[in-house]
Amino acid sequence: MAKSLGSSTNIIIRMEIDKNQCTFAQVAAAIGEGGGDIVAIDVIRGTAASTVRDITVNVYDGSVGDRIVQHLKQVEGVKIVNVSDQTFLLHLGGKIEMQPKVPIRNRDDLSRVYTPGVARVCMAIHEDPSRAYTLTIKRDTVAVVSDGTAVLGLGDIGAMAAMPVMEGKAMLFKQFANVDAFPICLDTQDTEEIIRTIQAIAPAFGGINLEDISAPRCFEIEQRLNELLDIPVFHDDQHGTAVVLLAGILNSLRIVGKRIEDCKIILCGIGAAGMACTEMLMSAGAVNVIGVDRQGALNRDELYANEAWNRFAAKTNPNGERGMLSDVIKGADVFIGVSGPGVLKKKDVSAMASDPIIFAMANPTPEIDPEEIEGIARIIATGRSDYPNQINNVLCFPGLFRGVLDCRASKVTERMKLAAAHAIAEVVSPEELSELYIIPSVFNTQVVSKVRDAVVDAAYADGVARRRDYRDSTNKGV
Amino acid sequence: MAKSLGSSTNIIIRMEIDKNQCTFAQVAAAIGEGGGDIVAIDVIRGTAASTVRDITVNVYDGSVGDRIVQHLKQVEGVKIVNVSDQTFLLHLGGKIEMQPKVPIRNRDDLSRVYTPGVARVCMAIHEDPSRAYTLTIKRDTVAVVSDGTAVLGLGDIGAMAAMPVMEGKAMLFKQFANVDAFPICLDTQDTEEIIRTIQAIAPAFGGINLEDISAPRCFEIEQRLNELLDIPVFHDDQHGTAVVLLAGILNSLRIVGKRIEDCKIILCGIGAAGMACTEMLMSAGAVNVIGVDRQGALNRDELYANEAWNRFAAKTNPNGERGMLSDVIKGADVFIGVSGPGVLKKKDVSAMASDPIIFAMANPTPEIDPEEIEGIARIIATGRSDYPNQINNVLCFPGLFRGVLDCRASKVTERMKLAAAHAIAEVVSPEELSELYIIPSVFNTQVVSKVRDAVVDAAYADGVARRRDYRDSTNKGV
Repeated sequence: MAKSLGSSTNIIIRMEIDKNQCTFAQVAAAIGEGGGDIVAIDVIRGTAASTVRDITVNVYDGSVGDRIVQHLKQVEGVKIVNVSDQTFLLHLGGKIEMQPKVPIRNRDDLSRVYTPGVARVCMAIHEDPSRAYTLTIKRDTVAVVSDGTAVLGLGDIGAMAAMPVMEGKAMLFKQFANVDAFPICLDTQDTEEIIRTIQAIAPAFGGINLEDISAPRCFEIEQRLNELLDIPVFHDDQHGTAVVLLAGILNSLRIVGKRIEDCKIILCGIGAAGMACTEMLMSAGAVNVIGVDRQGALNRDELYANEAWNRFAAKTNPNGERGMLSDVIKGADVFIGVSGPGVLKKKDVSAMASDPIIFAMANPTPEIDPEEIEGIARIIATGRSDYPNQINNVLCFPGLFRGVLDCRASKVTERMKLAAAHAIAEVVSPEELSELYIIPSVFNTQVVSKVRDAVVDAAYADGVARRRDYRDSTNKGV
Repeated sequence: MAKSLGSSTNIIIRMEIDKNQCTFAQVAAAIGEGGGDIVAIDVIRGTAASTVRDITVNVYDGSVGDRIVQHLKQVEGVKIVNVSDQTFLLHLGGKIEMQPKVPIRNRDDLSRVYTPGVARVCMAIHEDPSRAYTLTIKRDTVAVVSDGTAVLGLGDIGAMAAMPVMEGKAMLFKQFANVDAFPICLDTQDTEEIIRTIQAIAPAFGGINLEDISAPRCFEIEQRLNELLDIPVFHDDQHGTAVVLLAGILNSLRIVGKRIEDCKIILCGIGAAGMACTEMLMSAGAVNVIGVDRQGALNRDELYANEAWNRFAAKTNPNGERGMLSDVIKGADVFIGVSGPGVLKKKDVSAMASDPIIFAMANPTPEIDPEEIEGIARIIATGRSDYPNQINNVLCFPGLFRGVLDCRASKVTERMKLAAAHAIAEVVSPEELSELYIIPSVFNTQVVSKVRDAVVDAAYADGVARRRDYRDSTNKGV
């Protein structure tokens, strides 16, 4: 554990010390030899023979923690119970909680929020189910649903282990857009079971954010649920990524003075995100998108075992270019990677058209090290926070779902996603726009409200909004 | 609407007024004639031709609201958009919200609660799933699940309309026991679908509170889920009611100086709650419980279409008493009603043994009006808050689930329910105990901690607790 903490941090080592076998001085010596500074000591419990203590130790790097533990293990009479760092401590008991909006102070309050008063509210919804949007949490609540099959870069780690990510997402939803998100991690990976389960739990929610579900199941799950439910179902790994990518591309093309219609765009990594990115780019006007995977450029006259690839190939690569990445990238204007580390070479970038635009979004290690192509590529974006131009879904989902909820949209349409991308791009003003600033920071406070407004307008334009008077914020009547 | 508000309250009438057809003076006159006092006027929006206003009106009774609306409807040019009262206003946007436990202030925070830091926490759970209890919301979170088929006294009103009750329950869980409850209302009433859905969503939760699911499906759903899941599944309408009933019975018997083993107990209304109450009473030592439903006393030599009734009859009514309620109640020590209004007659109570104990728990109208048997019955309890001795589930579920979560119980055993009942009963001290105070108030602050402690001890005694060091509150390590 404690591998990549980055900078000076505290770790907490809980240990049981056998008083007959060693002294605390020996423990302190071992910690010092390991390279740590003791900050605090808390006695958790003790008997005549032994004590359990939490030793807080400042270390300048996570690897020091491992070294200290190795030193301590050599001290006879010391048993390491547990080692925590700040990240783990932050997670104790989970990161979110349910809160009543009003306190129940007395019997009168109780009779309003619960029996008998609540019965009239129930009957009002029973008579007109659309009232659920005003009289229940449906107005502000989305489910963040995962089956734990494609969590971050970790793969299929299961439902329980996916929870910290979903809880983190719920935190972001609340803090950035006042959306109440509840994490639902599913103990099934069967497409039909997932669809049925989400359908069954849908009534409480105003939207469903699918998360970290592996391809190709994610396509069918999203599509079928969007047909079955009257609330939007949105697979963030696909469409959230695609929206933020497009925002970055739009601003990049502004800098180099090219039109998306004229660009040759190489999209490397034809998984769920890659396909969604391609659709988004083509909705925005792109024509010449060439998909590349391990075996080279996808072509419409090939037959692939993966049915989604056949559909993809049918609408891309209009000039039928063939070959591996290093072949088809020649003369390309834009490279977009949603693949793996090291896939793109320096000479590939050199072979591109003027002002190469590189979006190397593989996580945590990009398709090419940005330092390697400095001075060759005109614009470089990655998925990382330690380089400029981070393509981060957090720029999209809070505002998008806030908009969806505010207008009670039944679907997320292509127009709504395009509107979100343009809104994100426009947060960067023409004066601010530069090679190192094509996309706003996730902490930019304008993003959420601009995305929300754009999504709401697009929902009304597409006829999927169901709230009559969304702009009238005082209209909260039932 | 606005039928039984009880006392003076404000209602808010939103109306659209056509300026060409009427004046505000006419509107005010109609409200005054209807019996209301205008408290406030808010202009929501207006054009040259019309305005939309919210008129807040004080009324001394809910029926006045209806009368005012009737008067207003006769004013030409007035269109009633909506009428709200304080109960409805309290429900706007729902009654609960999700809150992050810590704010995300900067990129450093973001990298701990979300990518990339969260990945280490996910992997720690992946390696040892029991860590979900320390590193996710599972430690404190239960699902409150309903299919909307038996909501309060309202019957099958559906999933969406059940939400206000489930949200209210979530408020009580949090306020009384710091349990984070999330309401899940199911868009299915099929037993198999319900079981599969709850099984699929279980990983995030430390317990499942089934709520307002109609019999006989509730029996199978609870039993099957308890076999399938490693977290407790508890149907509150059955067992919560039974626990609180037993608490009241134990204290009542203390007052009259009878032993539960010696009592003849009539249980009227053999539905889900009635069966659970009977099991609880027999676990506590009761022998002679006679179940009565519409067709009279249940007997073991009869064959009933309802299979649950055959099982019930086989273990009750050991003396084979026959006849209707008024026959078998003769000489009974205790009457327990979970049936309907007016089922019990004054002469039935007069025919009971000395010191009759009457628990008339039908809601909202008891089996007999308590005033009618004052001086005849020794002890009277109801489900209502406007009489002494309210039998209210709120006395049980917060403390019971807090205990279950604190010791990571895998089941709720009979011993745990008995322990909860005794704990509730013991909150009333021997000095306080009287005919009018057999059960503590729901606002009594001792109840939750006593119930929790008793449930935890019983869980360890039964071997269903899975936390090693539950009493060591500082032991929060992973």
